[in-house]
Amino acid sequence: MITSITNPRIKRVIKLQKQAKARALEQAFVIEGIKLFREAPQDLIKEIYLTQDFGAKYLNEPNHLKEKLLSSSYEIVSDICFERMAQTKTPQGIICLLSQLDWRFSVLPCEDLLYLILEDLSDPGNLGTMFRTAEAAGVTAIILNGGCADVYNPKTVRSTMGSIFRVPFTYAEDLGQVIAELKNQDIKIYATSLENAESYDKCDYRAGTAFIIGNEAHGLCPTTKALATQSVTVPMLGEVESLNAATAASALLFEAARQRRSLN
Amino acid sequence: MITSITNPRIKRVIKLQKQAKARALEQAFVIEGIKLFREAPQDLIKEIYLTQDFGAKYLNEPNHLKEKLLSSSYEIVSDICFERMAQTKTPQGIICLLSQLDWRFSVLPCEDLLYLILEDLSDPGNLGTMFRTAEAAGVTAIILNGGCADVYNPKTVRSTMGSIFRVPFTYAEDLGQVIAELKNQDIKIYATSLENAESYDKCDYRAGTAFIIGNEAHGLCPTTKALATQSVTVPMLGEVESLNAATAASALLFEAARQRRSLN
Repeated sequence: MITSITNPRIKRVIKLQKQAKARALEQAFVIEGIKLFREAPQDLIKEIYLTQDFGAKYLNEPNHLKEKLLSSSYEIVSDICFERMAQTKTPQGIICLLSQLDWRFSVLPCEDLLYLILEDLSDPGNLGTMFRTAEAAGVTAIILNGGCADVYNPKTVRSTMGSIFRVPFTYAEDLGQVIAELKNQDIKIYATSLENAESYDKCDYRAGTAFIIGNEAHGLCPTTKALATQSVTVPMLGEVESLNAATAASALLFEAARQRRSLN
Repeated sequence: MITSITNPRIKRVIKLQKQAKARALEQAFVIEGIKLFREAPQDLIKEIYLTQDFGAKYLNEPNHLKEKLLSSSYEIVSDICFERMAQTKTPQGIICLLSQLDWRFSVLPCEDLLYLILEDLSDPGNLGTMFRTAEAAGVTAIILNGGCADVYNPKTVRSTMGSIFRVPFTYAEDLGQVIAELKNQDIKIYATSLENAESYDKCDYRAGTAFIIGNEAHGLCPTTKALATQSVTVPMLGEVESLNAATAASALLFEAARQRRSLN
């Protein structure tokens, strides 16, 4: 059992929780809680840390976690160590260190592709929520530029509710190049915009579609917007100046999903 | 200028930022930043606290805030006091103490009413986002039960982006009674549910409509669900078990708004 908060393994997990740079350097990230542990692919799990209580509960009697726990190497840690490692307010007693995902991204010649492109999206919680929504709406992949929050930020990982393991994503150095490639594949590019835009429910998203969502405060940068096939907007009543970025994404993605269901 | 963090006025603002009970007792709440100050109704503003920098910038030369600042009583506070009062990471130099809103709620005999009913919704950020979405989608009023987060929680207020001042809301002691009253007015009640539910885009929301959204983790309680006219669900692809509550609300509300636009 690890009881010292200066133990190098404990310090490493804490560092990976806090620092995006450390996560990128080690190509690792941290998950907390039962749900994410259950959904984490076995081959990504590198280390498991349990409280004594959690170990006593799940390592002995048969249960839905035992087999997965025993097939990896786990370590019991003192409550004080665990509290230092955890970022959640009411931790469940399990923290894992995982390898980062490695999606090999390519544009497939398929008709119903649906991409979500994110530019400078800064809020970690919003980003995680978008992963969850994207999976539900059938998104093929999420493409982020370097200005976006870190997908492996603990808050983002939590907000995905497991979708981080299932929705392919990639950070692109040059969104312009990605958009050009998608257009070459006859994928229509829709930029969210508040000006000179078509109402989002007047467009046809049944063929290959990509939505670009910009920064929460500043929206899309004009050069990116200019690359789009069409600007779209979610009509707003009242005095609302803009929608939350995750809300706008969900309006667009669920409209695409709705139209695509009518194809079947 | 107030320079002591033990000044009773400073301590009062800090207390109102932190404690829902204090807010309820004083029927007051706190807002931060320029946007919320601009949108706050004049008659709600009780006290204004500014940093010296903010005062120097906005109290002298003509600008869009000067008139509103001068028409209320403001107080300059030291940077240390201000930091203690602020909850945002990069405060803008203005904090106001406001009276709580007092919406007189009644069911109006009008055809296109659109209500959002929230049961035990616990996340303050989600709640604020729903206000913003609700205004954009044309919601008539939001009805919350006592188990919901406090609308005046600083995080909720921030997330509304000003919609808190414009979307009528009320806390109901008994949601069952509210639902019965709405039904008497021929308003159809749609409960969100994952089981035995119609796809949300197969229903007609053009006449009087109310959506009920439940707790983020547990969904709606069965007795509330049983009162609904119809259960609806947002179809989900992948392995997603449920949507973020604010995402589900936005899917439903924007679908209602979309259908209602087609009426005009």
